[in-house]
Amino acid sequence: MLNIAIAGLGTVGSGVVRLLQKNAELIAARAGKPIKIVAVSAKLKTKRRDCDLTRIEWVDDPRQLASVPGVDAVVELIGGAEGTAREVAESVLKNGKHLVTANKALIATHGAELAAKAEKAKVNVLFEAAVAGGIPVIKTIREALASNQLSLVYGILNGTCNFILTRMEESGLRFAEALREAQELGYAEGDPSADIDGHDAANKLAILSALAFGVVPDLASVHVEGIRHITPDDLQFAKDLGCCVRLLGVARSGASGVEQRVGPSLVSLRSPLAAVKGPLNAVLLRGDFVGDLTLEGRGAGAEPTATAVMADIIDLARGNAMPVFSVPSSHLKKTVALSHPAATHATRYYMRLQVVDKPGAVADISAILRDEAISIESLLQRGKSEIQSVPVVITTHQSEPDAMMRAVEKIAHIPAIVEKPCIMQIES
Amino acid sequence: MLNIAIAGLGTVGSGVVRLLQKNAELIAARAGKPIKIVAVSAKLKTKRRDCDLTRIEWVDDPRQLASVPGVDAVVELIGGAEGTAREVAESVLKNGKHLVTANKALIATHGAELAAKAEKAKVNVLFEAAVAGGIPVIKTIREALASNQLSLVYGILNGTCNFILTRMEESGLRFAEALREAQELGYAEGDPSADIDGHDAANKLAILSALAFGVVPDLASVHVEGIRHITPDDLQFAKDLGCCVRLLGVARSGASGVEQRVGPSLVSLRSPLAAVKGPLNAVLLRGDFVGDLTLEGRGAGAEPTATAVMADIIDLARGNAMPVFSVPSSHLKKTVALSHPAATHATRYYMRLQVVDKPGAVADISAILRDEAISIESLLQRGKSEIQSVPVVITTHQSEPDAMMRAVEKIAHIPAIVEKPCIMQIES
Repeated sequence: MLNIAIAGLGTVGSGVVRLLQKNAELIAARAGKPIKIVAVSAKLKTKRRDCDLTRIEWVDDPRQLASVPGVDAVVELIGGAEGTAREVAESVLKNGKHLVTANKALIATHGAELAAKAEKAKVNVLFEAAVAGGIPVIKTIREALASNQLSLVYGILNGTCNFILTRMEESGLRFAEALREAQELGYAEGDPSADIDGHDAANKLAILSALAFGVVPDLASVHVEGIRHITPDDLQFAKDLGCCVRLLGVARSGASGVEQRVGPSLVSLRSPLAAVKGPLNAVLLRGDFVGDLTLEGRGAGAEPTATAVMADIIDLARGNAMPVFSVPSSHLKKTVALSHPAATHATRYYMRLQVVDKPGAVADISAILRDEAISIESLLQRGKSEIQSVPVVITTHQSEPDAMMRAVEKIAHIPAIVEKPCIMQIES
Repeated sequence: MLNIAIAGLGTVGSGVVRLLQKNAELIAARAGKPIKIVAVSAKLKTKRRDCDLTRIEWVDDPRQLASVPGVDAVVELIGGAEGTAREVAESVLKNGKHLVTANKALIATHGAELAAKAEKAKVNVLFEAAVAGGIPVIKTIREALASNQLSLVYGILNGTCNFILTRMEESGLRFAEALREAQELGYAEGDPSADIDGHDAANKLAILSALAFGVVPDLASVHVEGIRHITPDDLQFAKDLGCCVRLLGVARSGASGVEQRVGPSLVSLRSPLAAVKGPLNAVLLRGDFVGDLTLEGRGAGAEPTATAVMADIIDLARGNAMPVFSVPSSHLKKTVALSHPAATHATRYYMRLQVVDKPGAVADISAILRDEAISIESLLQRGKSEIQSVPVVITTHQSEPDAMMRAVEKIAHIPAIVEKPCIMQIES
């Protein structure tokens, strides 16, 4: 018997209860023993929930769950890097119990510290559900690819943004319209900032970097951009360039350190990531022996996330253990924070400018790019107007990020440029 | 220290040696201890190999590896369901050592028996490398999805066939031409039968079914068809139908049993599997909570396969264990062998007929289909000739497999039909 307690009974929490009840027999056979929920805790005891809580002890203070007699592991599903969630996690490790969590902010912020405490207490901290819902990307990095040096982790880590971008792509919707649709369908929250401004994906990327490259998870060194400024024009230009636009999290390990960035990017239509539509997530991992491995599936929602939580619990029941971030926490290196925009390597760029009086402006832009030794690959323009601004898109050959950022800064000051330039990396 | 011995130093065997030597330090940190190759065995000691064997004991008889003092696990990379490979596996378990193998035929044929022996000896049998090379599909089913009831396993499990089909698709090559190209590039063997006739994929499918559905692996109940009869016409018609042709392995679990089939199939261009080109593999898993999960990567070759072998070895070093086929071998059910063509559920069909004297033939075909209550969805024809046969393609609505097979049998006897009809399921 493995006895678990659950802190937090929102979408994911009640999903875990339902899954464990529906497939109890199967899970016991596969885990080698029955798994029993002995206690739960949540804010409102009286709230109607889509799961059966009879015969489960209710504990008002989730910090007390680890002290419930017989509890082997506590599942923290409260969320947030600080406050109750963090206190629950600390109390679990202090009591020498295993911690399972879906809390990306907690792991991205305090992961290394929790790992050290868990090692001291000889317990596990497992967080498969913290990244990409039902996609077992953490198990894949930590176990399946444990023999490989990874150089790249690259993925669509936020389903809300992917839904919005693919809706804009398919139907020519503007950002605000696609966002409203996402909210109506439950893919975006009332306050959508964590998703659409890239912070959710940044938390996930920091965790994946830590696992893949053996560094302390370091949210502060992730360069983050969201998708609010993407227009239907961008999606059309991308298509003309044989690409689509995706919010990517990209982490690269190189000689000078680890580069981590989240931002809208142009992805070739031939890439497996271009086929990832709607609220799905996908992650591509590159290892020195395995080559490229892509995982795709449902990145959020009660059922897929509950599957990930249960995978961790079954690992505990089977007695399986491994270092929290693939290696002992004392081996984790500090990430080297890289200069804005967190790109260590030359890359191709997409730049959309809103221009009035095009003939003069293009000459100015070209001169600035020439001075920074940036070579133009293509220049596209759609529409023509003497009064309104028109979009002009420039794509570059491989360019140094610092040079590109200096050029953009100067270009933004050309009087004929009427909006902040929209810059995206073109992933090859 | 975990001491391993390797039986077989072909492509995969020398890949494992190289991987373990190149990333030794990283592997030791992640595995929690160094992993050392203490002994190897292969047919020819003097053969030049792409790896360093100095300071490793050479053992002439691979059946003796398990008795080398200090050996904890033996890695069997000889191949084949019987003969030396099987004897090595038996000797390893008899000696109470762990067995790691990439041998799909051995596991598909004797897996349940080996699992029972391993349980008795309290050792593990691990075979991540037996299916889909570097794609961790076995770990994903056995661990990540252990809480889910799986209903479908569906994938491109043979890179040789996928290379041939995508080459035919891209360049209009005939089958024999694409096969020759595959042989020149090393993607197909001199005797290509195991790949192109579907047997390789069938072995892999039997293993995945066992893991996913808790059945004894049963190669004999897999319905197998290869791709020799696929023509450039089929690829063109498929495209006109918004599809492509892939050799799929499909295993479904339903009320009446487990259906397992390998055969060329029409896959919608919108499916993630349509984007899988060249020698890549991909597997889609469907679970009751996780939904659809797709894994894509390199399904063969020294480096990806060595990665899979090393994942198993690192699991052993970490002390992680689980039932060989997800559940104890005594729980495995016998598969119910289903009637030809192993389809328990109604499905849509693609049928290409080579027809002379079309007007009369179409009336005959239509009457036969009507009599079997099979409804035609579309009828396509390319070219027109009074002398030569022309291809006529019929797609059906959802039809009962038995009715369809009876209809095909009758249609094949119409005098105007000059070749065996080419039938493919249309996967939706």
